[in-house]
Amino acid sequence: MNANPKFLNSAAELDEAATRPFPKSRKVYVTGSRPDIRVPFREISLSDTPSAFGAEKNLPVMVYDTSGPYTDPAVRIDIRNGLPALRAKWIEERGDTELLAGPTSRYGHARKTDPTLGEMRFNLTRPPRRAQAGKIVTQMHYARQGVVTPEMEYIAIRENQRRENLSELILTQHRGHDFGASIPRVITPEFVRDEVARGRAIIPANINHPETEPMIIGRNFLVKINANIGNSALGSSISEEVEKMVWGTRWGGDTVMDLSTGKNIHETREWIIRNSPVPIGTVPIYQALEKVEGKAEELTWEIFRDTLIEQAEQGVDYFTIHAGVRLPFIPMTAKRMTGIVSRGGSIMAKWCLAHHKESFLYEHFADICEIMQAYDVAFSLGDGLRPGSVYDANDDAQFAELKTLGELTQIAWKHDVQVMIEGPGHVPMHMIKENMDMQLQHCGEAPFYTLGPLTTDIAPGYDHITSGIGAAMIGWYGTAMLCYVTPKEHLGLPDKEDVRVGIITYKIAAHAADLAKGHPGAQIRDNALSKARFEFRWEDQFNLGLDPEKAKEFHDETLPQEGAKQAHFCSMCGPHFCSMKITQDVRDYAATQGVSEQEALQKGMREKAIEFVKKGAEVYQKV
Amino acid sequence: MNANPKFLNSAAELDEAATRPFPKSRKVYVTGSRPDIRVPFREISLSDTPSAFGAEKNLPVMVYDTSGPYTDPAVRIDIRNGLPALRAKWIEERGDTELLAGPTSRYGHARKTDPTLGEMRFNLTRPPRRAQAGKIVTQMHYARQGVVTPEMEYIAIRENQRRENLSELILTQHRGHDFGASIPRVITPEFVRDEVARGRAIIPANINHPETEPMIIGRNFLVKINANIGNSALGSSISEEVEKMVWGTRWGGDTVMDLSTGKNIHETREWIIRNSPVPIGTVPIYQALEKVEGKAEELTWEIFRDTLIEQAEQGVDYFTIHAGVRLPFIPMTAKRMTGIVSRGGSIMAKWCLAHHKESFLYEHFADICEIMQAYDVAFSLGDGLRPGSVYDANDDAQFAELKTLGELTQIAWKHDVQVMIEGPGHVPMHMIKENMDMQLQHCGEAPFYTLGPLTTDIAPGYDHITSGIGAAMIGWYGTAMLCYVTPKEHLGLPDKEDVRVGIITYKIAAHAADLAKGHPGAQIRDNALSKARFEFRWEDQFNLGLDPEKAKEFHDETLPQEGAKQAHFCSMCGPHFCSMKITQDVRDYAATQGVSEQEALQKGMREKAIEFVKKGAEVYQKV
Repeated sequence: MNANPKFLNSAAELDEAATRPFPKSRKVYVTGSRPDIRVPFREISLSDTPSAFGAEKNLPVMVYDTSGPYTDPAVRIDIRNGLPALRAKWIEERGDTELLAGPTSRYGHARKTDPTLGEMRFNLTRPPRRAQAGKIVTQMHYARQGVVTPEMEYIAIRENQRRENLSELILTQHRGHDFGASIPRVITPEFVRDEVARGRAIIPANINHPETEPMIIGRNFLVKINANIGNSALGSSISEEVEKMVWGTRWGGDTVMDLSTGKNIHETREWIIRNSPVPIGTVPIYQALEKVEGKAEELTWEIFRDTLIEQAEQGVDYFTIHAGVRLPFIPMTAKRMTGIVSRGGSIMAKWCLAHHKESFLYEHFADICEIMQAYDVAFSLGDGLRPGSVYDANDDAQFAELKTLGELTQIAWKHDVQVMIEGPGHVPMHMIKENMDMQLQHCGEAPFYTLGPLTTDIAPGYDHITSGIGAAMIGWYGTAMLCYVTPKEHLGLPDKEDVRVGIITYKIAAHAADLAKGHPGAQIRDNALSKARFEFRWEDQFNLGLDPEKAKEFHDETLPQEGAKQAHFCSMCGPHFCSMKITQDVRDYAATQGVSEQEALQKGMREKAIEFVKKGAEVYQKV
Repeated sequence: MNANPKFLNSAAELDEAATRPFPKSRKVYVTGSRPDIRVPFREISLSDTPSAFGAEKNLPVMVYDTSGPYTDPAVRIDIRNGLPALRAKWIEERGDTELLAGPTSRYGHARKTDPTLGEMRFNLTRPPRRAQAGKIVTQMHYARQGVVTPEMEYIAIRENQRRENLSELILTQHRGHDFGASIPRVITPEFVRDEVARGRAIIPANINHPETEPMIIGRNFLVKINANIGNSALGSSISEEVEKMVWGTRWGGDTVMDLSTGKNIHETREWIIRNSPVPIGTVPIYQALEKVEGKAEELTWEIFRDTLIEQAEQGVDYFTIHAGVRLPFIPMTAKRMTGIVSRGGSIMAKWCLAHHKESFLYEHFADICEIMQAYDVAFSLGDGLRPGSVYDANDDAQFAELKTLGELTQIAWKHDVQVMIEGPGHVPMHMIKENMDMQLQHCGEAPFYTLGPLTTDIAPGYDHITSGIGAAMIGWYGTAMLCYVTPKEHLGLPDKEDVRVGIITYKIAAHAADLAKGHPGAQIRDNALSKARFEFRWEDQFNLGLDPEKAKEFHDETLPQEGAKQAHFCSMCGPHFCSMKITQDVRDYAATQGVSEQEALQKGMREKAIEFVKKGAEVYQKV
């Protein structure tokens, strides 16, 4: 733990690689019904099709952008000040909240006033905010009142793939199969409101996190991914965690969970939230356990409650709460291969056994809802009994808990509190769909948020891949958000590169799911990239990809010369074997003859064949 | 191109990392009905369960082993001599082949007698072998005659997961869902014979490649993977390709395709075959094209025929032949996003258009069969019209070709020639199953062999992952072999590390498919690894994984000390947050009380809860 993080001295120390704009990309904003609704996109500009392929203009492609102001050169980043509070006015205008004198949690107050923490404390001058007595300030509450909030409008703009002026070729896509989801062709603010009102989607947006760019999690929207960060007793400092958050959103993390368990997690969290353009989730029981020095049996409702308030007043957007780990379910895990693998689940199991009492999270669930509704913190109902091995998949313990999460969802909804449901874990392919089916059946269509699932246990070091397979499938089946897994899973703490690989893997899974569901416009980026590939527009191919830097680096390894970026052949095959080149030759031939290939063949024009042979000598352009 | 590969001077120059045995693993052989049927397995020995977890003995786990003699310290490797010809006697005993005076192909003869090639030529003293006039020497032919060959017996032993003495816990597995495949609980030689006879499986085993360890490809067997190697005009030498082959089989490649297109591909291939313990596949049209200096229109049946014989006499085990790219199908590709992306397919398309004639591969298909049956080369009927982008998936061109491949399969089978069918390509998830269904419907259940499919186009640099998702799914649906894709796909030639990552990704996909199909015993390795994970047997966890070296390396990054390998907590969470530790504590508590947790709870024994709290202080062992 670094008690005096080096970034406190200079904002410039945030790694330049984490903030530089993507190549040939610029940040653009689409303005909504009021000037302060400015929705960010990344516009990727493309070069023209070379004359050999028809010399056409390729319009820029706009993609969903999670990276926040960090990739906007017009914004001056200083992480000591945090990001602009873009939602502050919207929250204030609603007139249902009040400013507090300071943190109302005992612990939050103590940390704020502890003089020894001055060095590492984020200097937030704004006081926390809370619902006025008797008010509910959740997006679900507004939605149910029929109110379309600026957040909802922002999301509607953000969720629509930008399609202006694109060619039919780029726009065309396969009809997907969506397993009962029903994604409209155009997402309207009213549709967003309706989905949130019925609990089928959530907008994690704590009133104390006005820095977030609103986003939505639900199966009728783009599939989202979460990136976990967080230090442990064993390593990593505040500055590293902030940088991982920036790095993670750069590559496409839609939300970030701070799973820190070391010291000073209160201060670490503050730095992360103040600088995060995406919703932040936590598992409050981790910090509560730190407060009782790791002794699960000493946890109390009072300590947990104080922790919820502490974190809600910092601005955490969703809480993982393992309220479904009930006393009677614990014995169901005794015959498992890997017992209880959820940290939160095992803490609660231990507490229940130690006291031989029902979980205080379960018993106080309505009290928890009352806290959540005063700040608009969403539930992520934790699957404390998820399987930790293929052997344990879909067992009684897992599904007993899932049904309980369904009951708790109904209670939360009575309080107008937003809910998503966490899912497994380790599940072989043929058992994945049952998870989705059971979740839909028992949890009233609340969004499902799964970890993987990992489809086999035998590849430590590659669990981003074992789980990416399961994630793509369950995303297709209807899971709304996929929690990433990095290559270090089961082995160690991810570093920055692991975060990048984990996120790109999960962007692939989420996008593959969007394609399979037939999300309108999802295929635009695939089509644009494939067209660039076919036309040997190498730079466009890199830039339209999820990781332009990596793609370019790989290409450079085989063909490092700058000229190779204009090469009309693939670096794998060399000039004589490029099938795309040959295909284009075939097309060109047909075009120059003024007939379609079909006609040429039907007429049986031998002479044209002869001409083709004559021209053959020039077929491969030398570069 | 290195004209004097450095390994010619010293066998020791084969990288030691490519041949050292895996940690805690030893090569064991299971002997069949005759002493020269010695089937290799890798036996992974495990440490005992620590006393805190019950102090039991963990029996070694035996896994399928593709690495050949390279990982057997008892075998002296000298790649100048090649591997032992373990099938030579079986082939000879059948008495249906004859030794030739030398290569009977014009080209093979020319290369053999060219004095300038002496330096780079593999010194094979054994002459090539061919079927006696009027004889058919394919495994399919024998199978149909009711003969169980030594190859079939070898395979039956190899395909059974070794289950001797393993505990019920390790053996238990979920019933899979196999989409109409029917894998018996025990694979018998007779079952192998029957599957080969009906064309549902193939044994690629050229009589001129007696070095191969027999293996089978079919959907009632373990899912296999292929690794592509091969130089291009742009890079890599003979020695590099041999080393990639060794490296590829080390990590789990079941077959290797040599896709070389540069110079000296004849000599490169010879070195690869002589040193390969796995079947080698090629695409003969690549070399034929080299022979006409890259001018597709100058290809002739005679040149192609000579190339087939040349390669058959070297020992290539299967040929990709794009005989389904018929003249009338070519116009169907004109409106595609990415045209024809198969190199072989585009070469044939170009030939057909240039001559305005039906493909000579299609017209001479029966002649080709006659060559294949004289050496037992299997067909891998190429999908020359596979989609190169999500946009082009499952289109008319693709399925027109697939139906033609079905017709050709029937012709091959009339000649007792073994056949598998190649499949795509780029296909979004919801369109994958249609590929398998169509293949089963049209191709008489001949094994399907697919490239990926890639489930999205937007991740150059990560196409091992975009395709690993599709590969796992189509493997589950019934694909018998998965052709790997490396991270360099679309960008460059894979190096050794790319081969490793590509293979491990595909081993994951294949194994995930075996689990989902419920292949008997497939889950043994998952269970053994998960048990090791739960019991904090770190080394066992690494060693049971697909890439022990990578797993250990990742673990060392967080906890480098040797002592940490005995640590009773995970490196991600630190000692206080280890859920597995907590679970074990719960179990221990129940055990020391002499009651099951269930009973303890039912009796409502408050006093036990109190005792548990008292003992709590000692719950976390310090390490």
